[in-house]
Amino acid sequence: MTHECDVLVVGFGAAGAAAAFEAAQAGASVNVLERASGAGGSSAQSGGELYLGGGTAVQRACGFDDDADNMFAFLAAALGPHADEEKLRLYCDDSVEHFEWFRARGVPFAESLYDAPGWMPPTKDGLMWLGENAWPYNTIARPVPRGHRPSAELFAGGILMEKLAAAVAAAGAVTHTDTRAGSLLVDGDGRVAGVTARTFGEPVTYRARKAVILTTGGFVDNEEMLSHHAPALLGHGKVSDGLDDGSGIRMAQAIGAATRRMSSVEVALTALPAALVRGMLVNALGQRFINEDVYPGLFSHAAVLHHPAPYWIIVDEKGYEDIPEGDLWNVHPRHAAETLAELEAELGMPAGALEATVDAYNRYAERGEDPYFHKDQKWLRPLVPPFAAIDPRDGFFGVGSETGVNGFTLGGLHTTIDGAVRSHSGPPIPGLYAAGRASSGIHGDGYISGTSLGDGTFFGRRAGVAAAREDA
Amino acid sequence: MTHECDVLVVGFGAAGAAAAFEAAQAGASVNVLERASGAGGSSAQSGGELYLGGGTAVQRACGFDDDADNMFAFLAAALGPHADEEKLRLYCDDSVEHFEWFRARGVPFAESLYDAPGWMPPTKDGLMWLGENAWPYNTIARPVPRGHRPSAELFAGGILMEKLAAAVAAAGAVTHTDTRAGSLLVDGDGRVAGVTARTFGEPVTYRARKAVILTTGGFVDNEEMLSHHAPALLGHGKVSDGLDDGSGIRMAQAIGAATRRMSSVEVALTALPAALVRGMLVNALGQRFINEDVYPGLFSHAAVLHHPAPYWIIVDEKGYEDIPEGDLWNVHPRHAAETLAELEAELGMPAGALEATVDAYNRYAERGEDPYFHKDQKWLRPLVPPFAAIDPRDGFFGVGSETGVNGFTLGGLHTTIDGAVRSHSGPPIPGLYAAGRASSGIHGDGYISGTSLGDGTFFGRRAGVAAAREDA
Repeated sequence: MTHECDVLVVGFGAAGAAAAFEAAQAGASVNVLERASGAGGSSAQSGGELYLGGGTAVQRACGFDDDADNMFAFLAAALGPHADEEKLRLYCDDSVEHFEWFRARGVPFAESLYDAPGWMPPTKDGLMWLGENAWPYNTIARPVPRGHRPSAELFAGGILMEKLAAAVAAAGAVTHTDTRAGSLLVDGDGRVAGVTARTFGEPVTYRARKAVILTTGGFVDNEEMLSHHAPALLGHGKVSDGLDDGSGIRMAQAIGAATRRMSSVEVALTALPAALVRGMLVNALGQRFINEDVYPGLFSHAAVLHHPAPYWIIVDEKGYEDIPEGDLWNVHPRHAAETLAELEAELGMPAGALEATVDAYNRYAERGEDPYFHKDQKWLRPLVPPFAAIDPRDGFFGVGSETGVNGFTLGGLHTTIDGAVRSHSGPPIPGLYAAGRASSGIHGDGYISGTSLGDGTFFGRRAGVAAAREDA
Repeated sequence: MTHECDVLVVGFGAAGAAAAFEAAQAGASVNVLERASGAGGSSAQSGGELYLGGGTAVQRACGFDDDADNMFAFLAAALGPHADEEKLRLYCDDSVEHFEWFRARGVPFAESLYDAPGWMPPTKDGLMWLGENAWPYNTIARPVPRGHRPSAELFAGGILMEKLAAAVAAAGAVTHTDTRAGSLLVDGDGRVAGVTARTFGEPVTYRARKAVILTTGGFVDNEEMLSHHAPALLGHGKVSDGLDDGSGIRMAQAIGAATRRMSSVEVALTALPAALVRGMLVNALGQRFINEDVYPGLFSHAAVLHHPAPYWIIVDEKGYEDIPEGDLWNVHPRHAAETLAELEAELGMPAGALEATVDAYNRYAERGEDPYFHKDQKWLRPLVPPFAAIDPRDGFFGVGSETGVNGFTLGGLHTTIDGAVRSHSGPPIPGLYAAGRASSGIHGDGYISGTSLGDGTFFGRRAGVAAAREDA
């Protein structure tokens, strides 16, 4: 059995949808293969945040003035050090257009701001802060919120993928679900010409006259690849639909594709932001190490990749009670004590460790200062008894893991700004593109929510356009 | 011009020497290519430490009882998490034999212990501690020293390579210097059959009837590869002979070789161990973060990869004056002050930061305890005025760099325990071997001196034996 098309997209998450849509819009006949029984992938199960800015309609409606340079300055710092500045420049310059592309696909964005720290708003607000207003980023770029969210409470990835999948179908791309690509077909002159696949046990061949675009996701579900390339994620929970096994990366490597930053990861600590800003995040030894009002992705990186576990949220009774009900996510302290001496003993810290940290915090908080980590003044006040410790390992609203940590991979195929997959010698492999977490995107060592769906769709679109332009 | 041999070794550092010697001993005709004008490579410029144990003659002469399991327990922890336990098991089981191999090659080891913390002894002692006696390793394995050193003061890599190069020549291997390999030759059935090379501008072909062994070193001298795979080293000094540009890794990748742990690095902070154990190591915010008597490679990792720079050695006058002359390496404090308040102000730390750290340290040191990081009791006493801060950026005995950090890469070609280079699909590429820093060895996230020369020579030997056994 053989199918033929101009552009073959392998994997139907957000990046695949963006690529398929653009290729079909450009007049190519497009097939999309998806090994699951429907479109969506890990994208559909995600929070749905899209990191967009530069002056989008939602930003303007909420009263914020942004521009591409300002957005670039923030992301270069927050995704860094070592963000991919060439890709990032393009991503920022074209961000308003990319936002309008989502709106034109029917993705709804409410023109209202959710103005509290959090992983995901419990509201349908279309805009949220992703740490732009936290130190040091508020000294590097003019702070404006850029977390754009489809209208849904908490997880908004479902509605995002529903709209994108409908757009793909409307554009004329044909999707084959329950179809798993096996390996790339290469013709005599080294050009990628399709894939072998299996559907319900039967072998099937897909020939692509113009190009194959791999949007198969990362490799967090492949323990062997993690062990070889990103061991930091071993033992932690996985942010995926269970099918991010690096298949596309491996298919391309087998024909000479280069990879980039394979050890880069996103990690998320299930620590309640609303409690953290009102208290403090400490490591196993009771040391603070970051301003707690930074975007949660960044305090998670600081903790999980750089500090000894376990981590604790230390909060006082007043701080805990001040948390708005909608931001509490059914989180309760694991330990409570009248004194810090009792609390640090319960947490297994050296006597005096937590006391010293809180002493230093309080002494400065009284003056509205945090010279260590520069948490915003609005969160600063001395902590007073009784105290409590919240354990991130307890998780929140159904997101949990044994370690309190869930993550995914950011490294992957080395692509050009048009999504062409580079060979080890540098030049692209003819007829092969990639986007989303099958590729290495805009990220350096840092991670901000919305940049994975963001760069996946942005460079997915560029790959779709470029693939449709290839000679058949 | 074409040369022919059975086994072609590319790169004449320690790993190449070990491979060439064993292949020649096994009866193969061996050519060694070296792009520099003589043997040695980065190995010859190194400290020359060899991490060996399990009960070597030197260990026994110095009164230490060791075994392979004990050695394994230490290294699995100190090179971990995520050390390669399969390779490590073999490395430990055969370590006594490997030590005897060096002695049989004429490498001299004095049967005496250098019993002080340091990067490199200023003496000719043949044995040194490499952190086996520091927490937590002293709770995981019975502490015995395993740092074996050829008889030389400070840098002992030169004498090591002098002996190994002589052994290679004596075994009958023929070395061609000033000869730079360009790419691998692959015959019709996918077997590696030699390399193309250039010598003094002229192209030359080397055909290998049995196998090619790549021992070309890591890629710290290749900025582009660092940026793609190990950005943590960007901007820091390089531990290399200037020729570790990843050429062997790239040659093999071009024909389908897989890599492993490309982001892993060794970093060394030029911080004086003798001052550190008598004082403390703090980050930019005046926080301690590790027991200062741990092996220097490990405090360097903790600092450079996980804590905000700059780093400071805080010491009091008494501690500084207690440092034996031979361990002082001409290091002088950058700042001195009568009080910690003055000192922390000079260092740009928040007021009270260093005071709190020293308070906590002193309170416990008085009782001979360090419940935070478990520095050995023998180094613990309260620090008293006047105080000083030493800046690792000032370097010592000619080793310096702008950041106070020098490093090299640990990731590379994915090899079997016999040094065969794996393809992306798993099975080895016929006729291709690698060892040393062109390959990924026994290391996980940690690094201990002597394990790079150690695993390079150990698996280099195995590669030489296996290559000589291949069918011609």
